[in-house]
Amino acid sequence: MHSADELRALVEDALGELALHRDIGPLEDAVRYGFEGGKRIRPVLCLAVGEALGRDPEELLPAACALELVHSFSLVHDDLPALDDDDTRRGRPSTWAQFDEASAVLAGDALLVEAFRLAATYETTALVRELAEATLGMIGGQHLDVAGAAPDLASLNRLKTGRLFESAVACAVAVADVEPQTWPVFGREVGALFQLVDDLLDGDGFVLVQGQEETRRRADEAAERALSALAELDADTSVLRGLVEGLATRTV
Amino acid sequence: MHSADELRALVEDALGELALHRDIGPLEDAVRYGFEGGKRIRPVLCLAVGEALGRDPEELLPAACALELVHSFSLVHDDLPALDDDDTRRGRPSTWAQFDEASAVLAGDALLVEAFRLAATYETTALVRELAEATLGMIGGQHLDVAGAAPDLASLNRLKTGRLFESAVACAVAVADVEPQTWPVFGREVGALFQLVDDLLDGDGFVLVQGQEETRRRADEAAERALSALAELDADTSVLRGLVEGLATRTV
Repeated sequence: MHSADELRALVEDALGELALHRDIGPLEDAVRYGFEGGKRIRPVLCLAVGEALGRDPEELLPAACALELVHSFSLVHDDLPALDDDDTRRGRPSTWAQFDEASAVLAGDALLVEAFRLAATYETTALVRELAEATLGMIGGQHLDVAGAAPDLASLNRLKTGRLFESAVACAVAVADVEPQTWPVFGREVGALFQLVDDLLDGDGFVLVQGQEETRRRADEAAERALSALAELDADTSVLRGLVEGLATRTV
Repeated sequence: MHSADELRALVEDALGELALHRDIGPLEDAVRYGFEGGKRIRPVLCLAVGEALGRDPEELLPAACALELVHSFSLVHDDLPALDDDDTRRGRPSTWAQFDEASAVLAGDALLVEAFRLAATYETTALVRELAEATLGMIGGQHLDVAGAAPDLASLNRLKTGRLFESAVACAVAVADVEPQTWPVFGREVGALFQLVDDLLDGDGFVLVQGQEETRRRADEAAERALSALAELDADTSVLRGLVEGLATRTV
């Protein structure tokens, strides 16, 4: 078994060596810029679930990279002036601010397509379908958010953040070709945990609605439910337990 | 065999009945708006190649619709103010002008993902890979165009227009699971023909560089090469010959 840090290093190497399609030409700079510097939580989660199910990280790396590219696509487009209008991301100019709006629209598009190209390197089309459904949820969530039309914050987070976490778990389960058991519950709770802690760290989202204390309580409950789901699985979930604890107590 | 008009009606019906993913929610209006009113040339080409190879249009319809969604995605994003800044498309407001920029960015994203979801309904991942490569070429071409960095007009057209025409042919060949023979040549020449006639009708592109007469000559040559490629194929290409002649003489 690899530690979470070792898995993260594998993801970082794979992303660094990713052969982007030659036809994107000079857009490659903006595309690479768009996926540099992330925490790689989703791909690490995917690899760790795969390894808990006895699958070599090498086998899951294309799916893991695809998840990170979808995540990066969403950030590059969400940061655009017409959407969230964020000129900073990960401590440096966001893609549109570093390049220009046209390049950011096209780089986001290319990130998305490269993700599907990676997902299509598997024998089965299951990963493409899983990733497509998750991405449509994220897009729908972002639209509700921008339009101020979300029914409630929990539903919105489930779409915008939760779907890709669920997909990170589901992609590993699909490659391992095992019964889902409580894996979907685990994916859902990890996604909720990540978002709640994000709100605590940023002082927004749930913190503004429910307050700091209630948000902390909900995050701890999500962590407990994630750990309970793991406990029911017939798999070596030691690294995943560490990931959940790391997400619950993270400070960045 | 179905006529081109019959194939177009099948495409129109399939697009009208397309079940978009429920998670896109109220964004569905902008997504449907984005693919309404097209001439459906690429999907009809795909179905006609499939039928020439003995495949039922039903079998090719998901691929055909995916091609039209990719084409629509490219128009919705290209029309954005930060790119070509077109407020009119197909005689009515472009998607961003009808809705807003944020909705157009997200609707374009959703069109792209729905295309891959359709391509992934086949047993093989070949269609997803084919469509992804074509789309990356289109994105790379649009980036060169916006940045004014294209080496020459023919290379640019090959990426922006040609790749998806080639892909329409290649998707049908992949589903029919036959040897490519001269099909790739046919796809390339039909794409070139379409773009040259577009320039003639709009009075731009090649017409501005080479003049009306030379552009007409090149279009006719592309049509001839497309017909020659068809003549070498072991397939019933009567409908395809009609399509080529229709593209060469079209007035809209």
